[in-house]
Amino acid sequence: MLLQNSEKLVMIGDSITDCERKRPYGEGLFGGIGKGYVSLVDALIQSTYPERGIRIVNMGTSGDTVRDLEERWASDVEALKPDWLSIMIGINDVWRQFDQPTIQESHVYPEEYEATLRELVLRTKPQVKGIVLMTPFYIEPNKDDAMRRRMDEYGAIVKRVAEETGSMLVDTQAAFEPVLRDIYPATLAWDRVHPSAVGHMVLAKAFLKAVGYTYG
Amino acid sequence: MLLQNSEKLVMIGDSITDCERKRPYGEGLFGGIGKGYVSLVDALIQSTYPERGIRIVNMGTSGDTVRDLEERWASDVEALKPDWLSIMIGINDVWRQFDQPTIQESHVYPEEYEATLRELVLRTKPQVKGIVLMTPFYIEPNKDDAMRRRMDEYGAIVKRVAEETGSMLVDTQAAFEPVLRDIYPATLAWDRVHPSAVGHMVLAKAFLKAVGYTYG
Amino acid sequence: MLLQNSEKLVMIGDSITDCERKRPYGEGLFGGIGKGYVSLVDALIQSTYPERGIRIVNMGTSGDTVRDLEERWASDVEALKPDWLSIMIGINDVWRQFDQPTIQESHVYPEEYEATLRELVLRTKPQVKGIVLMTPFYIEPNKDDAMRRRMDEYGAIVKRVAEETGSMLVDTQAAFEPVLRDIYPATLAWDRVHPSAVGHMVLAKAFLKAVGYTYG
Amino acid sequence: MLLQNSEKLVMIGDSITDCERKRPYGEGLFGGIGKGYVSLVDALIQSTYPERGIRIVNMGTSGDTVRDLEERWASDVEALKPDWLSIMIGINDVWRQFDQPTIQESHVYPEEYEATLRELVLRTKPQVKGIVLMTPFYIEPNKDDAMRRRMDEYGAIVKRVAEETGSMLVDTQAAFEPVLRDIYPATLAWDRVHPSAVGHMVLAKAFLKAVGYTYG
Amino acid sequence: MLLQNSEKLVMIGDSITDCERKRPYGEGLFGGIGKGYVSLVDALIQSTYPERGIRIVNMGTSGDTVRDLEERWASDVEALKPDWLSIMIGINDVWRQFDQPTIQESHVYPEEYEATLRELVLRTKPQVKGIVLMTPFYIEPNKDDAMRRRMDEYGAIVKRVAEETGSMLVDTQAAFEPVLRDIYPATLAWDRVHPSAVGHMVLAKAFLKAVGYTYG
Amino acid sequence: MLLQNSEKLVMIGDSITDCERKRPYGEGLFGGIGKGYVSLVDALIQSTYPERGIRIVNMGTSGDTVRDLEERWASDVEALKPDWLSIMIGINDVWRQFDQPTIQESHVYPEEYEATLRELVLRTKPQVKGIVLMTPFYIEPNKDDAMRRRMDEYGAIVKRVAEETGSMLVDTQAAFEPVLRDIYPATLAWDRVHPSAVGHMVLAKAFLKAVGYTYG
Amino acid sequence: MLLQNSEKLVMIGDSITDCERKRPYGEGLFGGIGKGYVSLVDALIQSTYPERGIRIVNMGTSGDTVRDLEERWASDVEALKPDWLSIMIGINDVWRQFDQPTIQESHVYPEEYEATLRELVLRTKPQVKGIVLMTPFYIEPNKDDAMRRRMDEYGAIVKRVAEETGSMLVDTQAAFEPVLRDIYPATLAWDRVHPSAVGHMVLAKAFLKAVGYTYG
Amino acid sequence: MLLQNSEKLVMIGDSITDCERKRPYGEGLFGGIGKGYVSLVDALIQSTYPERGIRIVNMGTSGDTVRDLEERWASDVEALKPDWLSIMIGINDVWRQFDQPTIQESHVYPEEYEATLRELVLRTKPQVKGIVLMTPFYIEPNKDDAMRRRMDEYGAIVKRVAEETGSMLVDTQAAFEPVLRDIYPATLAWDRVHPSAVGHMVLAKAFLKAVGYTYG
Repeated sequence: MLLQNSEKLVMIGDSITDCERKRPYGEGLFGGIGKGYVSLVDALIQSTYPERGIRIVNMGTSGDTVRDLEERWASDVEALKPDWLSIMIGINDVWRQFDQPTIQESHVYPEEYEATLRELVLRTKPQVKGIVLMTPFYIEPNKDDAMRRRMDEYGAIVKRVAEETGSMLVDTQAAFEPVLRDIYPATLAWDRVHPSAVGHMVLAKAFLKAVGYTYG
Repeated sequence: MLLQNSEKLVMIGDSITDCERKRPYGEGLFGGIGKGYVSLVDALIQSTYPERGIRIVNMGTSGDTVRDLEERWASDVEALKPDWLSIMIGINDVWRQFDQPTIQESHVYPEEYEATLRELVLRTKPQVKGIVLMTPFYIEPNKDDAMRRRMDEYGAIVKRVAEETGSMLVDTQAAFEPVLRDIYPATLAWDRVHPSAVGHMVLAKAFLKAVGYTYG
Repeated sequence: MLLQNSEKLVMIGDSITDCERKRPYGEGLFGGIGKGYVSLVDALIQSTYPERGIRIVNMGTSGDTVRDLEERWASDVEALKPDWLSIMIGINDVWRQFDQPTIQESHVYPEEYEATLRELVLRTKPQVKGIVLMTPFYIEPNKDDAMRRRMDEYGAIVKRVAEETGSMLVDTQAAFEPVLRDIYPATLAWDRVHPSAVGHMVLAKAFLKAVGYTYG
Repeated sequence: MLLQNSEKLVMIGDSITDCERKRPYGEGLFGGIGKGYVSLVDALIQSTYPERGIRIVNMGTSGDTVRDLEERWASDVEALKPDWLSIMIGINDVWRQFDQPTIQESHVYPEEYEATLRELVLRTKPQVKGIVLMTPFYIEPNKDDAMRRRMDEYGAIVKRVAEETGSMLVDTQAAFEPVLRDIYPATLAWDRVHPSAVGHMVLAKAFLKAVGYTYG
Repeated sequence: MLLQNSEKLVMIGDSITDCERKRPYGEGLFGGIGKGYVSLVDALIQSTYPERGIRIVNMGTSGDTVRDLEERWASDVEALKPDWLSIMIGINDVWRQFDQPTIQESHVYPEEYEATLRELVLRTKPQVKGIVLMTPFYIEPNKDDAMRRRMDEYGAIVKRVAEETGSMLVDTQAAFEPVLRDIYPATLAWDRVHPSAVGHMVLAKAFLKAVGYTYG
Repeated sequence: MLLQNSEKLVMIGDSITDCERKRPYGEGLFGGIGKGYVSLVDALIQSTYPERGIRIVNMGTSGDTVRDLEERWASDVEALKPDWLSIMIGINDVWRQFDQPTIQESHVYPEEYEATLRELVLRTKPQVKGIVLMTPFYIEPNKDDAMRRRMDEYGAIVKRVAEETGSMLVDTQAAFEPVLRDIYPATLAWDRVHPSAVGHMVLAKAFLKAVGYTYG
Repeated sequence: MLLQNSEKLVMIGDSITDCERKRPYGEGLFGGIGKGYVSLVDALIQSTYPERGIRIVNMGTSGDTVRDLEERWASDVEALKPDWLSIMIGINDVWRQFDQPTIQESHVYPEEYEATLRELVLRTKPQVKGIVLMTPFYIEPNKDDAMRRRMDEYGAIVKRVAEETGSMLVDTQAAFEPVLRDIYPATLAWDRVHPSAVGHMVLAKAFLKAVGYTYG
Repeated sequence: MLLQNSEKLVMIGDSITDCERKRPYGEGLFGGIGKGYVSLVDALIQSTYPERGIRIVNMGTSGDTVRDLEERWASDVEALKPDWLSIMIGINDVWRQFDQPTIQESHVYPEEYEATLRELVLRTKPQVKGIVLMTPFYIEPNKDDAMRRRMDEYGAIVKRVAEETGSMLVDTQAAFEPVLRDIYPATLAWDRVHPSAVGHMVLAKAFLKAVGYTYG
């Protein structure tokens, strides 16, 4: 696995990442790391490699778009001096276009999304050993659904930015595909966005695969 | 409009009907009638026909299936001696098959659904002036979606029972169609089931049309 | 109906308007628009004209007088750049004269009321497509009641200002008249001021009539 | 004053009497007697006649009608073996006819009201030294108001029963008259029923006058 | 009675005065005046002289000593421009010497007490029609009790200041004397300081006597 | 010290004993033994004699009189099969006579108090190794105070019963004497009954002296 | 993996199993399965084998000993008709001997523990496809620690019962060994009993290994 | 005993000291001194020497390390001008190294610990009559346990600083030794750090011994 002794991984994102993490820093005793995929990533890594002393910090914030990430990038990413960084953002950038279509100032359209994400990755790249970009997702198997289609556009942007910047990529939407063949979305996420424990495990496994984790 | 002076309308159903109504009877001061389509039906009727003294009672209960309605039918419908009765049930009968597929004892399959609904309608018909059957619905425009397809099956059952028993029919799914052409489901219902205020207005209007209400 | 595609309507007022709206802006998911007539106006408009994408923002604040509106006009009206604006204010300006008569600094007398209201309307008129002035009201049918008489004076001021400034007028007191012929005030408002759901529907219908809404 | 050494006065009624009294008996430390006119009666009597050791018990229950009093008469009046008894009931008997007119089973009409009140007084008379009947009231000076008119009917019944049974009478409506000449109802009671501290003092004084209390 | 039409009385003090009054000003709807003797004074005055429109404001603050009063004198007395002023302070000045004897910075000794009280009275006298000084008290009949003896010293200071400055005096300790002959302190105040409703009535009556109130 | 290896001491009483103990049995983790003198007795004994494995159970109940103890004696004392038993009761028996003098059914007068206490002691004596009777107390140094005088009567009864039944005696009132020479009652107990931590320590020491405890 | 299509696994135990599961059955939406190792087992299984429709029910109850399991065995295990059953019990049986040593009725000693556990396994074996016995554990690496030594005795009993009854065995204590080489107990469990998320993952992995789960 | 008339003792530390003390100063009515060993020290001293008027102030703050003490030294120690000072710090300095090993900025290593503690003692020594240094402790009898070993290192530092600065020493770890021979750590502290009431008594006695307290 890529993460070595005493290295620090910061995982930033929106409510899927946040999951009741501690403030101002999402780590430490009594569930400081939150209750979502970040906690599962940590639990799988620590139980497999207890000797490495790897440090994982959850910096997700519910409701955030990439615009919000940019505002808190200095304090919430750079000041923490991570060795590794993961970013999963974009769901709210898209969702607001569909659940409150008339409130346009709450939307982040593709151009701004791509530019901001690229800028953050390029700015941070020289300071870390590696960046993992996780696509946003929508737990809806119908690719013709309007919001799914839109989310796929944002996913494609993430892939493009990952390729251009030499970042690792986690295609979370693809990770949900096989599960959605057998399980209806409502079982995995009551609103097609916020995953159940099973859904978070899908995310954690997808992330761990990208960083070369071996279960055991 | 069908409802005449001093007549009583009981509206029974699940959480879409319930909406924080008062217990044991959903009427009276300070929002006893709940905050959903039943309240809108009442507000539109009372503001248009204040002189009629029509009485509307909300007997919805969150989470109910038709199996639950049957259990409380004597106390929650018959004991109230309504002149008119509306029934909107079936969403949970279907939903449980999709959001907790392995817990089969929580599912109500079509055969039981149809038999129970028909039995309740036939048993009550002689005691009231009229029954309004409202189909269950799923705020998802894609007719190939597995749960939408299933809900349409239950909607077809309601139509069949309405026809056979001479009940009035409100096709709620059809009522949402035109709105869903322009508005994405997430705006109308965060989980595609529980409507926003706009969604409840769609339901109220569909019901009122069936009973011959004239806006003014 | 006057409101066209993508236009924004801001509705400002006191507790009758507020009804638990979200802060700082009364719109968005999960009842951000509040639970009163503004929500009903929105629900009736969106269900009838879903294709127009009209945006309605509730900026009511409980307890406000016209003096309070003036203080927050820049941030709560002008900064929102509405296309249309509705104002319903004056109930507290009058009520405080009757429920705490000795606390005179809490009263807003007719001269100040009229001057402030006119100033706000004239200042905003050039920036919007239209302004709707809604009279304050008192759900008391006895015109000789001291507070009703006073409220009618303020209603007359609103009518005068509407006429002078070319604003649309909604005579809410008149809208309640026919309902009060059959329903005692206590049914519509426990304190003769805060309407029940039926009372809010009366207000919503009166507003919608003024802007040319067609039910359907 | 009529009440002599170690005598016990039970005061029964509705929410005007109740005012957060202790259960099951409204007396004792830390406001057991409630916060309304009963507490004021007690405070005025105890401060003037501390040597008498008079015991006053508040047995009011919010929402009660005379029908409710009858149900709890054995446990809440007779079991307490009072020397003196006051009864103020009827406001809810009337109010429900006006604030929820369609829910007729919640109304107590004059015939039942009079019969029940008379029955309770006659049944209790032989066991006590005296009974004080307090009329229900409505803090509305307009005698043509529909609910005021109705309340006056019930007040007349109380007077008739008092006369027939040789009970003392407190005309609470008359007690409010002089105050209402100068103070608008909303200052005395936000809903024209539940008195402010000033309103409760009016009631206490009227009661005390009936039992021959001398201030000092 | 001394208080004339439209005059304002401010009553300042400690927790005996405060009694859950509203902030920042102790007046207005829904018990803004608190639940203690100030409310009783108001209720007795308003019910007797409703035509005078007298305004009473409760400015007590729990835990205050005369040192605290001085700090908030400008904002809490002078800014309110009262016509009449009552002051009851000193209980905490003394009590802290007995319940936390080692925390000396919380004690206000007689010299400071007298100097501060006199200064406040002299400074305010020219701005008002009259000042009522109410002695602090201790609901303990044993004059040899250490804290009662101390309280009496402070009471004597109040009397001296009242005489020197031409203020009206209310000897609250004396007012409790006759009641304490028949009632044990624990009935009037669980901690010998905070009065029950009866104790507050004793205070209200004593104050009202000083300002020439006639019951009726 | 009298208590030997693995012996069980049950301490029963009123709120002075109770102090938030666990239900139904006052022992076990996280403060099950309460926060008063029982906890101090336990802490002093366990820290001095950890090897004895002594078990102390707090069975105090707030508000209890000796009449209440009798009612729960079978379940709360006998069923626990204690080796040693302490009883401190009587404060409420007396207090109610002074804080709610007119509610006589809440008073327990000396005759009943003595008879009941003696009956309980005699009935339990054969089943235990020893009984400790603790007098009730009143933290008031003035022996002429009416309630102190009354409490002393009850203390004398306890002494008499102790002597007659061969029980150990703890004179709690005497234990407070030396402390009250230097500390005013209000420092030890805000209401002269419920002790501060210092007051509870006085009680614990007095008890421990009676059972031969040696500090160390 | 042993669990096949549509099979049901019931997992019973104490607080380590419970983890805020739903009542009366620990399954279903919104975390009904709790937040501990049972949820992790479910999430790993469902994400790997979504097509199997396996049903896992959490029947843990905080504080339980084997004595408590026996009491609820009929309703909480047998009535659910599981295909597979896991049992992890014994921590409280031991812990109470150490954290409340004098309260002996709360201890379950080895003889009772073994007899009860064997009886439950033998009674259930014929009704299920397989039983997994998980040893109790103590997150303390020092094998000479008194409680660890005692827990190991109970672990040995579980192993013996597993062997005798042909049950599968999960040695949870052994599963913690390698992790405890690098991580101090306080990181894994603040009280050496209740695991952090990492500790729960260790338990989940150990269970899954026993049933032949393949990660992927 | 060292503490003389009217002298003030400030006791500073972490959560073991804090125990819900009042803010900003841990003294005064209603448990201002907290519920831990400081309260026991105070209760034992005041009950034995009530005439001395000794003042004890609890300035513990949960979670504090010596680094935190330094930051608040001016306001929380020096500004209080104590005659005597006790310091018990170091548990969190050590614990964080074991319960969140990867969060290194939360650790205080020996060098910093010793330097800061010495600096604080030397700086304060000239201003007080005496300083009592209490070692940190860990309620774990196994001296080979990693955290116990580490805690002993810090204890040794405290001893060295005490000796060098002429401070009194309380070896709290030694004080727990005899108790731990008979009682398992879980009885004294659920997490081996936060003492039960018995554990706090051990601390209080150890402190009192150091200052020459004689029980009686």
